[in-house]
Amino acid sequence: MTTALPMNVPMSGLPERVRIHEVGPRDGLQNEKGTVPVEVKAEFIERLAAAGLTTIEATSFVHPKWVPQLADAEELFPRVAALASSGVRLPVLVPNDRGLERALALGATEVAVFGSATESFAKANLNRTVDEALAMFAPVVARAKDAGLRVRGYLSMCFGDPWEGSVPVEQAAAVGRRLLDLGCDELSLGDTIGAATPGHVTALLDALTGGGTPLQRVAVHFHDTYGQALSNTLAALQRGVTTVDASAGGLGGCPYAKSATGNLATEDLVWMLNGLGIDTGVDIGRLTATSVWMAGQLGRPSPSRTVRALSHQEQQS
Amino acid sequence: MTTALPMNVPMSGLPERVRIHEVGPRDGLQNEKGTVPVEVKAEFIERLAAAGLTTIEATSFVHPKWVPQLADAEELFPRVAALASSGVRLPVLVPNDRGLERALALGATEVAVFGSATESFAKANLNRTVDEALAMFAPVVARAKDAGLRVRGYLSMCFGDPWEGSVPVEQAAAVGRRLLDLGCDELSLGDTIGAATPGHVTALLDALTGGGTPLQRVAVHFHDTYGQALSNTLAALQRGVTTVDASAGGLGGCPYAKSATGNLATEDLVWMLNGLGIDTGVDIGRLTATSVWMAGQLGRPSPSRTVRALSHQEQQS
Repeated sequence: MTTALPMNVPMSGLPERVRIHEVGPRDGLQNEKGTVPVEVKAEFIERLAAAGLTTIEATSFVHPKWVPQLADAEELFPRVAALASSGVRLPVLVPNDRGLERALALGATEVAVFGSATESFAKANLNRTVDEALAMFAPVVARAKDAGLRVRGYLSMCFGDPWEGSVPVEQAAAVGRRLLDLGCDELSLGDTIGAATPGHVTALLDALTGGGTPLQRVAVHFHDTYGQALSNTLAALQRGVTTVDASAGGLGGCPYAKSATGNLATEDLVWMLNGLGIDTGVDIGRLTATSVWMAGQLGRPSPSRTVRALSHQEQQS
Repeated sequence: MTTALPMNVPMSGLPERVRIHEVGPRDGLQNEKGTVPVEVKAEFIERLAAAGLTTIEATSFVHPKWVPQLADAEELFPRVAALASSGVRLPVLVPNDRGLERALALGATEVAVFGSATESFAKANLNRTVDEALAMFAPVVARAKDAGLRVRGYLSMCFGDPWEGSVPVEQAAAVGRRLLDLGCDELSLGDTIGAATPGHVTALLDALTGGGTPLQRVAVHFHDTYGQALSNTLAALQRGVTTVDASAGGLGGCPYAKSATGNLATEDLVWMLNGLGIDTGVDIGRLTATSVWMAGQLGRPSPSRTVRALSHQEQQS
């Protein structure tokens, strides 16, 4: 049954291919309680690559005081860097110039900075205003580009904020454009608290294209807090987005926003894209096996419905 | 925050209003382990009506041997029948003529029959071929229509089947048309094992409209087994469907299809529709409180992500 379903039935107006930006090892493990041994993290990344994922955000060069779960970045990155030779992109998060320095020293070729669409979250997460955060990123992005790196700009709280509630579409679009103007190659629109619905997604994407931003440079990053991540993804694909962030097994959330439970699970996304006949290059069986294995390492079941359903069938057969 | 979010941002091409066909008391409780006391069921239905749901499938007049969870139909229905005077529709499932007899005796004004798109499920669920099942329903539907009742035809396994795997779109459309041709006022397309993806939904709806079936007569009934229910719903709304089945708190599944875990949760649906500015008449706060209360009665948490997120916020505030 797992090979026969879902039926491949394309839908008009969607892209032929989607690139999945896998965030499990970084965004996922960053938000899990307890520390995962470095060799388990390395195996996780290797297994994700073997399952066909071609962009795997590996770790974060943030100060260990803030994210102790990823304090082993210097030890982890060299263990997996060889995957680059087989075409796997391994971006790493760099919060500031010191983080970029560490990433460059290890030979990273792709980095990401992490901005906020709202003042409240900029204050809570970065202890800066939105302007101050962008000013901090400017030399980081410039230096990364000078070094030939590809740079992604994350934008958090694009669709709602736990302190401010709703976030105007034009506000999120404006900060997003500023991240791209700094030199970021790609902008990832984060629905950090899972508050987006499909019309909101369409409106924000339209605001960006209306301002001249091509959607080839835009990724979407949805959280499944209210179960909306996949319908939001569908709306984004219908508008022309071709890069989607997801986390294997639905790992992670956001420690600074209590109601943010769960990234979109990569398996739930791949199931939908498989049904739509959209190529991702991912083997859903191998990916699910990886998430089941990681759930065992973490000592709790995956929240992904697809992982649960497929692993349940596996046990029965 | 619960009042400010989601932001109301309509999406073009969607209906202004959606009627939710609430199946929790029947499809939900039918598939829960253990028996819920009749007074709890009655309170559940009353609370659903108070939350604004206007179509609540109350129970099933199936033989108690097959569905012991609903053996109290004769006792339950009279307890809630007064809701009809405030405009609440209370359909009941009738598997055959004997079931219709019982429903008529209690003054039911709306009934549903339950067909299958596949031979394997017709055999497993009804011990009949598809043709034999339709032949059994024919006099039931005719008699119900003669008595002035409204009749819904459920069609299971429209998008996949645990025995047969994929189900051709034309096959599901053809059986669906036969149910309508028997005299059913409405056809509910069931994704019993959760295998549908959005292009498949669109294709089946197009096959039905291509055969002359207006989508005003078609409802969709998605399961969240692989997390696809809400994106499938969005695809159906985009095609013009305005009636959506859902189960408060995500209660239930299907006992004859082991991998079928979970109806679409009404709260997850209402959250999306609220964001899209589509009117349902439902108060999501009252509905969530009802599902939290019912989860307490059942002794396990609701699988609905919206119920979990909203009740978590409630506990924090």
